[in-house]
Amino acid sequence: MKKILVVGSVGIDDIETPAGKVEKVPGGSAVYFSLAASMFAKVNFVGVAGSDFPQETIDLMKSRDIDLKGFEIVEGKTFRWSGRYHDDMDRRDTLLTELNVFETFKPKLPDEYKNSEILFLANIHPDLQLEVLKNVNKPELIISDTMNFWINSVPEKVVEVIRKSDIFIINDTELLLMTGERNFLSGADRILEECPQLKALIVKLGKFGIYATDGNDEFFLPAFPLRQVVDPTGAGDSLAGGFTGYLAKTGIYTFQNIKTACVYGSITASYSVNDFSIQGLKEFDLDDIKSEYDIFKKLTTF
Amino acid sequence: MKKILVVGSVGIDDIETPAGKVEKVPGGSAVYFSLAASMFAKVNFVGVAGSDFPQETIDLMKSRDIDLKGFEIVEGKTFRWSGRYHDDMDRRDTLLTELNVFETFKPKLPDEYKNSEILFLANIHPDLQLEVLKNVNKPELIISDTMNFWINSVPEKVVEVIRKSDIFIINDTELLLMTGERNFLSGADRILEECPQLKALIVKLGKFGIYATDGNDEFFLPAFPLRQVVDPTGAGDSLAGGFTGYLAKTGIYTFQNIKTACVYGSITASYSVNDFSIQGLKEFDLDDIKSEYDIFKKLTTF
Repeated sequence: MKKILVVGSVGIDDIETPAGKVEKVPGGSAVYFSLAASMFAKVNFVGVAGSDFPQETIDLMKSRDIDLKGFEIVEGKTFRWSGRYHDDMDRRDTLLTELNVFETFKPKLPDEYKNSEILFLANIHPDLQLEVLKNVNKPELIISDTMNFWINSVPEKVVEVIRKSDIFIINDTELLLMTGERNFLSGADRILEECPQLKALIVKLGKFGIYATDGNDEFFLPAFPLRQVVDPTGAGDSLAGGFTGYLAKTGIYTFQNIKTACVYGSITASYSVNDFSIQGLKEFDLDDIKSEYDIFKKLTTF
Repeated sequence: MKKILVVGSVGIDDIETPAGKVEKVPGGSAVYFSLAASMFAKVNFVGVAGSDFPQETIDLMKSRDIDLKGFEIVEGKTFRWSGRYHDDMDRRDTLLTELNVFETFKPKLPDEYKNSEILFLANIHPDLQLEVLKNVNKPELIISDTMNFWINSVPEKVVEVIRKSDIFIINDTELLLMTGERNFLSGADRILEECPQLKALIVKLGKFGIYATDGNDEFFLPAFPLRQVVDPTGAGDSLAGGFTGYLAKTGIYTFQNIKTACVYGSITASYSVNDFSIQGLKEFDLDDIKSEYDIFKKLTTF
């Protein structure tokens, strides 16, 4: 069992989807990620929130044995995000982004975090991701994530982060944006050409699943066949959490094990989208997901 | 080994894709389908062309042992279609449609065709599909296809055809159009509720693969990981051809065998899109595709 260090955002969100609307609910990449990953392994948490961040969520994280020594609560307001999803749940409009205490966030790593075997760099400014990379002691495995905002504004920094990572996770539209390619396969080829040190590139295809490649082997996992999605917010972070958690639990970083990690990541994400905010992740229990694993086997076997 | 009867269109196409441009090349659903299916089983062909249809293509079909007694060549011009694909190869604009001799097409079934064990109703007016259904002797398996044009213009007729079919093949955008659902899973559920006699519904997801369900079991096959697509025209008909051909070759119509048929259909389609018009299908040889089958196995196994 390896320890995971996650650095990412902590937020309070307003979310509207075709299934309903919620206000001032907990969110942020590090929150979703750590709740997901903590079902598999020990998580060290680095992030910042304002004094308005709900104690209930902090208590939930503690109950999951997430180490919160790196979670700063500072005077002021937590990062705020508000979004509205379209009918197809694929696209969303961002209605509001207020950085608040996140604007001046400098990740501070407690000394004991620096030897975490696995580092997950959630979606934050690549400069912060690079800063964290300087301050850790050679993790066994570095996994990073990003988003279109950074690809548009500081693309060369994003590439710098990928070049220092072992596994990079991206969604298909971001991949096309980043590479200028027409399809995700060519996009993945391009990233692996430019960043040949990558052990794996994980391309999230939304309702179509996950494509993973190490440049030689390829893997395509469909999405879990969910009839109803309540809230897609945090699906990618939950997927990354389950994925990273499984790798931490097993301590094996082969492409074969990365494939299985994709399955666990997908199952985790399917719980996350079942309810608003982090509610779905509360229902997630490793002992309970054998049926989901079997569904994936049946779904993909011919 | 079962015999397949196909009724569909025969055309002459002008095609422009990001990979290039061709004019007056052979096309049509029945032509793509029969060239694909004939690699697996015996095909009886019903369709109509004008006197301008290339003899070379007729000779190719003969060389594949496709029975052409039901292929009428009449005075006049063949059905013409012209289209231009967008950069992503997913969307296309139809630039021209001229029905020509196809306008008055009444499928005439040679008597010996009427006992074909498998009937494939390619994309033509549902009235013609229903007419064919009246004139055959209880095929063991009826597979049908359609397109958005008929879903928009005569939706109740399309449903009538599906209700008389064992397997229905549709693409995801057509499925959403037809059912008004937001995602292909719910769309598939809806079709199976309305047409419970279906043995299987096959939903083509383009570059994301195929989703198949019989209402109980579900199957998701990724697309063959092709780096370059030259011409997507006829991909769906080629897929249906390989799919139906495999079912005819084996004579087994279980969902398990339908899954394997999806794999063969996908491999067939991957050959079809490798070159313009029917050129790609000329390269297709059953003895040659073990490596593609193995790639699919590797791609989907965890």
